[in-house]
Amino acid sequence: MRGKNKIPSVKQADTCHIGIDLLGSDVSPQKLLEAIVAFRPTLKPSVQLTLFGQKEHFERFDALTSDGIVLHPVQELIAMEDDPLHAIRRKKKSSLYLGIQMLKEGHLDAFISTGNTGALMAGSKLLLSTLPGIDRPALLTLLPTRTTDVAVLDVGANTSYKTKHLVQFALMGVAFQKSRGVTTPKVGLLNIGSEERKGTPELRAAYEAIRKLSENSDFTFVGNIEARAVFHGGVDVLVTDGFTGNIFLKTAEGIGIVVLEELEASTQENAVALKQALASLRQHLHYAEYPGALLCGVNGIVIKCHGNGTSQSVLASITSAVRLVEHHFLQSIIMHK
Amino acid sequence: MRGKNKIPSVKQADTCHIGIDLLGSDVSPQKLLEAIVAFRPTLKPSVQLTLFGQKEHFERFDALTSDGIVLHPVQELIAMEDDPLHAIRRKKKSSLYLGIQMLKEGHLDAFISTGNTGALMAGSKLLLSTLPGIDRPALLTLLPTRTTDVAVLDVGANTSYKTKHLVQFALMGVAFQKSRGVTTPKVGLLNIGSEERKGTPELRAAYEAIRKLSENSDFTFVGNIEARAVFHGGVDVLVTDGFTGNIFLKTAEGIGIVVLEELEASTQENAVALKQALASLRQHLHYAEYPGALLCGVNGIVIKCHGNGTSQSVLASITSAVRLVEHHFLQSIIMHK
Repeated sequence: MRGKNKIPSVKQADTCHIGIDLLGSDVSPQKLLEAIVAFRPTLKPSVQLTLFGQKEHFERFDALTSDGIVLHPVQELIAMEDDPLHAIRRKKKSSLYLGIQMLKEGHLDAFISTGNTGALMAGSKLLLSTLPGIDRPALLTLLPTRTTDVAVLDVGANTSYKTKHLVQFALMGVAFQKSRGVTTPKVGLLNIGSEERKGTPELRAAYEAIRKLSENSDFTFVGNIEARAVFHGGVDVLVTDGFTGNIFLKTAEGIGIVVLEELEASTQENAVALKQALASLRQHLHYAEYPGALLCGVNGIVIKCHGNGTSQSVLASITSAVRLVEHHFLQSIIMHK
Repeated sequence: MRGKNKIPSVKQADTCHIGIDLLGSDVSPQKLLEAIVAFRPTLKPSVQLTLFGQKEHFERFDALTSDGIVLHPVQELIAMEDDPLHAIRRKKKSSLYLGIQMLKEGHLDAFISTGNTGALMAGSKLLLSTLPGIDRPALLTLLPTRTTDVAVLDVGANTSYKTKHLVQFALMGVAFQKSRGVTTPKVGLLNIGSEERKGTPELRAAYEAIRKLSENSDFTFVGNIEARAVFHGGVDVLVTDGFTGNIFLKTAEGIGIVVLEELEASTQENAVALKQALASLRQHLHYAEYPGALLCGVNGIVIKCHGNGTSQSVLASITSAVRLVEHHFLQSIIMHK
C-alpha cells in the first residue's frame, strides 16, 4: 500500500490494475462496458480492469466469459455540471472519488475517467498530492501532426504560471514521450516567434532554464516554436502554460472539424474515394481517438477522456495507461528532478 | 494637413488617397505593380493610388493608360530582417517611412505595406501616435468562420496587457465591423471556457467592463467564447491580448493548411470535383486572400499585408482601405470613447 506523498515503489511488470469510471460522460455506461469487454482479450492476461458503475449497468454482464474484468458497483455519481470541489468533498461514494482513493491505496495502478474534469483534478490533487519536485499538476494531451505526435502540456490545469512550472512541464513531457519509446525527445516552447527573445519575461526565463537543463540531459531543446510550425511535426514535447495551451488545443480542434464538415458537405455522394480519404483524415484529426488528457504531476496515473468522446477514446486510454504503468512513468518523472 | 495628435477631420467621400508600399515583401514589386494597374479600373474614379517603389520597378509602367495611379520612387528599402526600431530611425528615405509620413501630413488617407511588421508598427506609433482614448495600438485581422467573418484583435502588437486595453480593443473592433456594414456587432472575449468566472483576473475584469459598456451602446456583448466555438461563427469581434491572439491565429492557419495539404496529397488526379472543392476551400481559408492586419488605434489607417501573400491580399487591402476611409473609421473610434 502506498501512503500519501510516499514515492511509489517500482511496479512489477507482470500485474497491471486499471480502474475505469463508466459514469458521468455522454456515452452510456452500458455501451462503454460492452466495448471494454470486447476489447479485453486484446490485452495481456496480466492486465486487470476494474469498472466503476451503478448496479443497473452491470445487469446484462456475464462475469463467466470475462476474465480480467472486475465490476465495482457504486452508489453515487458526480455529474458534468457539479461544482468540482463541492462534489469531491460531498460525494465520497462516487465512482470518481472511489477510483482515486483505490489508486492512492495501491489497489489500482492507473485510473481513467470520462467524467467531470474539474472534479477529477481536484480529487487527484487532494487525495494523491503532487510528486516530489512537482509544484503543480498539468494536463498533457497528445496531438497528431503531419509526422509524429506531439505531447502538449499544460492544456488547462492552471491559468497562472511561473517559469519553474514550465520547466517542470518540460520534464514531465520528456518522461511521457520516453514511455512511448522516443529515446531523445525534442522539447519546444510555444511562443509567438521562433527568436530567443520573443514573448513574455516568464517565457524568456523558461527558454534559458530549459536550454541549460538540456545540456546534460536525455532530451534536446529546440527553442521557441510558433503555433503554425507545430503541425509540421518534429517536436515531441510542446511546453506552454495552461491558458495558452487550452486556446491552442481548442483552436486546433475547432478549425479541424470545421474544415472537415465543409468538405464533407460539398462532396457528392458518389465520390467514394474522397469519402474514404475524409473518414481517414477525420480519424487522424479527431481527438476522441486519442487517449484524452493525462493529469501528470500527481502521485498516480490519472487519465481524463473526452466527455463527448466515443468508446474508442476509453479503449485508447487503457492501452496508454498500461504502457505508462509498465514504463514506470511516475518514477521517471521523479528521477528527472 | 493633419498634425500629430490632432483628431483627423471628417473625410470628404469624393476623394480617397491610398498609398501602397511595393517593397520589402516576398512578392516582386513588378508583379504587384502589374496586379494593381489591372485592378485600378474596378475602383471608383475618385480613388487615387500612390505606389512606393524603386526607380527600376517603374520602368515598364505606362502612365498614359493608368489614370488614378501615381508613382513615388524612393531611394531606400527596409528589409524583412532589419531591426524595426533601428530601421525606422535610420532609413528615412524608405518607402515605409515616407508612406507613414505622408499619411501623417494628410497627403494619404491610408497606407498599405507588405513589409517589415515591426517597422510598420514602430513607425506608425512614432510618427502618427495613438488616437485620443487609445493607449496602445492593436493588430486586427479578419478571420473566416463557417458563417460570418470575425474581427480578431489584438493578434500580436502587444504581449502584455491590462483590462483597459481589452476594453479599447473591443471598441476598435466594433468600429471596424460597423464600417463593414454590421449594424450591431456581437463582441466576445476569447477565453478557456464560456462561464463568466473563467480565465485570468484581467479577463474577468474585462468581462465586467465590456458587459457594462454594452448596456448603452451599439454593440452586443456575448460573453466568453471558447476557441473551438469561434469557428462556428456568430461573433463579429473577438477580443484577446496580443500573445493569445497570435497563438490563436497561427494555430488556425497552421492546421487549416495541414488539413488541406493532406487531403490534396491523398486525392487522385481524376477527382476533378474534389479538386475544385479543395481549391475553393483553400481560397476560403487562406488568409492571403484576406486584407492582412489593420494596425488600429494609431492616428491613421495603416494596413499590413502578409509578406508571403499573393498580390491578391494587396488588392483586398485596397478595397478594405477605401471602405475604412469612406466610413470614417478613425472618427468612429474616437466617438466611442
